[in-house]
Amino acid sequence: MPSEQILHVLYIVAIIAEAMTAALAAGRRSMDWVGVAMLGSITALGGGSVRDVLLGRHPLTWIEHPSYLLITSGAALATVFLARYMYHLRRLFLFLDAVGLVVFTVIGCNIASGLGMPYVIVIASGMISGCVGGVLRDILCTEVPLLFRAELYATVSILAGALYIGCQHAGVPHALAMGIAMLAGLALRLLALRYGWSMPKFIYTENLH
Amino acid sequence: MPSEQILHVLYIVAIIAEAMTAALAAGRRSMDWVGVAMLGSITALGGGSVRDVLLGRHPLTWIEHPSYLLITSGAALATVFLARYMYHLRRLFLFLDAVGLVVFTVIGCNIASGLGMPYVIVIASGMISGCVGGVLRDILCTEVPLLFRAELYATVSILAGALYIGCQHAGVPHALAMGIAMLAGLALRLLALRYGWSMPKFIYTENLH
Amino acid sequence: MPSEQILHVLYIVAIIAEAMTAALAAGRRSMDWVGVAMLGSITALGGGSVRDVLLGRHPLTWIEHPSYLLITSGAALATVFLARYMYHLRRLFLFLDAVGLVVFTVIGCNIASGLGMPYVIVIASGMISGCVGGVLRDILCTEVPLLFRAELYATVSILAGALYIGCQHAGVPHALAMGIAMLAGLALRLLALRYGWSMPKFIYTENLH
Repeated sequence: MPSEQILHVLYIVAIIAEAMTAALAAGRRSMDWVGVAMLGSITALGGGSVRDVLLGRHPLTWIEHPSYLLITSGAALATVFLARYMYHLRRLFLFLDAVGLVVFTVIGCNIASGLGMPYVIVIASGMISGCVGGVLRDILCTEVPLLFRAELYATVSILAGALYIGCQHAGVPHALAMGIAMLAGLALRLLALRYGWSMPKFIYTENLH
Repeated sequence: MPSEQILHVLYIVAIIAEAMTAALAAGRRSMDWVGVAMLGSITALGGGSVRDVLLGRHPLTWIEHPSYLLITSGAALATVFLARYMYHLRRLFLFLDAVGLVVFTVIGCNIASGLGMPYVIVIASGMISGCVGGVLRDILCTEVPLLFRAELYATVSILAGALYIGCQHAGVPHALAMGIAMLAGLALRLLALRYGWSMPKFIYTENLH
Repeated sequence: MPSEQILHVLYIVAIIAEAMTAALAAGRRSMDWVGVAMLGSITALGGGSVRDVLLGRHPLTWIEHPSYLLITSGAALATVFLARYMYHLRRLFLFLDAVGLVVFTVIGCNIASGLGMPYVIVIASGMISGCVGGVLRDILCTEVPLLFRAELYATVSILAGALYIGCQHAGVPHALAMGIAMLAGLALRLLALRYGWSMPKFIYTENLH
C-alpha cells in the first residue's frame, strides 16, 4: 500500500475523529442537530479551507470531494447517539485527535511545498492545516482558543513541519520523511498529554490605555 | 417583470432588512455609529462574501456593486433613528428576515449551480449564503451563533435548496423552481416561528479530557 | 529617500508595534508563548490578509515576504520579556499604533486604487487594512471588537482614505497626497485619544423576538 494511500486513509480517520470531538463541544453548548453537523464539519475541514483560501488554491478540498462534507456531518450526527459510549473511549479519541494533528500538518506542508513556497510558509501551512479547525470551533463556541493557552498543540505542528523539511533537505525519501515527522509529532503530543507538558505562559495584567 | 428582476428586488429588500436587524443587535452591545454600519454591512453581505471566497469566485458582489455597501451602511445607520418604531414592526422584520433567508439561499444555489458544482455543494452554497451573515454577526457580538442553537433557520435553507434542485431535476422551469423553493422555505420558516418549532438539541456535559 | 521606501519603513515599524500591543492582549488572557506569537502575527498581518482575500489578490503579503511573519512573531515574543518596561512607553505605543492605522489605511487604499476599484471600495480597502487586524485580535480574545465601541479608530481610517482620494482627485502629487492623508489621520487619532473623542453610541435594549 503506497504512502499516498496510507495518508489518505489517515486523513479520513482524522476528519471523522475531529468531527466527533467537535460534536461533543457542540453538545456542551446545547446546539441543535444542524449546529452539531455544521460545527463538526467546520472543525474537521476548516483548517484546510483557511489554508487554501490564504494560499489562493482552488477548489477547496471539500468542494472537490463533497463526500468529505457528508462524512464529517454524518460523523458529527452519529456522535449524538454514540456520546454516552465516548467517555470510555476518550483515550482513543485523544489518540485519534493527535493523529489528525500530525496528518493535517504533513498534508499542509506537502501542499505549500508543492506550490514552491519557502520553508517558513511550508511550516505555517502545516500549522494552519493542523490547528485552525480547532480555533474556529472554539470561536464558534465563544471560548478563547484552547490552542493559544494549552498543551503543545501548535508546537507539535511546528516541530513536525520543521522535522519534515529537515528530513527532505537531508535527502531522506519523501515517504520516509513523512513517516518520521508524523511519528515524532505523535510521540511528542502523546507525551505532552501524558505528562501535562505545556509551553510557558505569558501573564500580563496592566492596561496600556 | 422577469424572474431575474424580481429576485434582484427581493435581494435588495433582504440586505436592507438584514442590515437593520443587525443594527439592533449592535445597539444591544452599545456599539457606536461606525460599528453599527459595519455590523449591518457584514451581516447583510457576509454570507455571500464567505460563499464567494470559498468558491474562489471574484469579484465579490459588493466589490462589483459598491452601492450595496452604501445601502447596507445607510440602512443600518437609519435604524439608529428608526429603532423606536421597529418594535411595532417586529413581525414585518421577522417576515423580511425569513424572505432574506430564502432569497439568499436560492441565489447561493444558483451561483454554485452555474459553476457546475455537484448537488451537495449547491445546497452548501445556498446555506452559506443564507446563514453565514448571521453567524458573523453573532461572533462579532461574542454570542454562540443563534443558528447553531435555535429554530429551523439552517434547516429551512437546506430544505429550500434541496427542493430547488429537486424541482429542476424534475424538469420544472427555472423561474418556477425558484418560486416553489422560496415559498416553501418561507412557509416553513414562518410556521417554525409561529409554533416555536426547533430541531432537537444535543446536550452533553462530560469533558473528554 | 523616495516615498515608497518611507512607506515601507513605516509599514515595518507598524507591524512590529501592532504585534507587540497584541502580545500584551495575549498576556492578559494568559496565553502561552506560541499563542502570543500567533496572536501578534494575526493582528499585525490579518487586516492586509482579509483585504487581499476579499479582493482575490494573491499571493498575500506575508506569503510573498515570509520575513514579515518572522518579524511579527519575534516582536510578539520579545514583548514577553519587555512587557515590564512597556507601561512606561505606553504613549509611544499608542502613537505607533496610530501610525500603523494610517499607514495600513493608505497602503490598503493604494492597493484597491491600483486594481482600478471605485472610490467606495478604495476607502473600504483602506479601512479593512487598517482595522480588521484589531477585530481579529478581539474575536480571538472573545471580546466584542473595541473598534465597534470606542474611539475614532475606524472613522480615522475612513476619513484618511477619503482625504487621500480627494487629494489625488484635486491633482495633488501621489507622495504628497499620501503624506497629507497620513498626517491628518494621525492628528485626528491623537486628538481623539487626548480628548477622549468618540462617535455617538447606539443603545438599544428591546428584543425583536
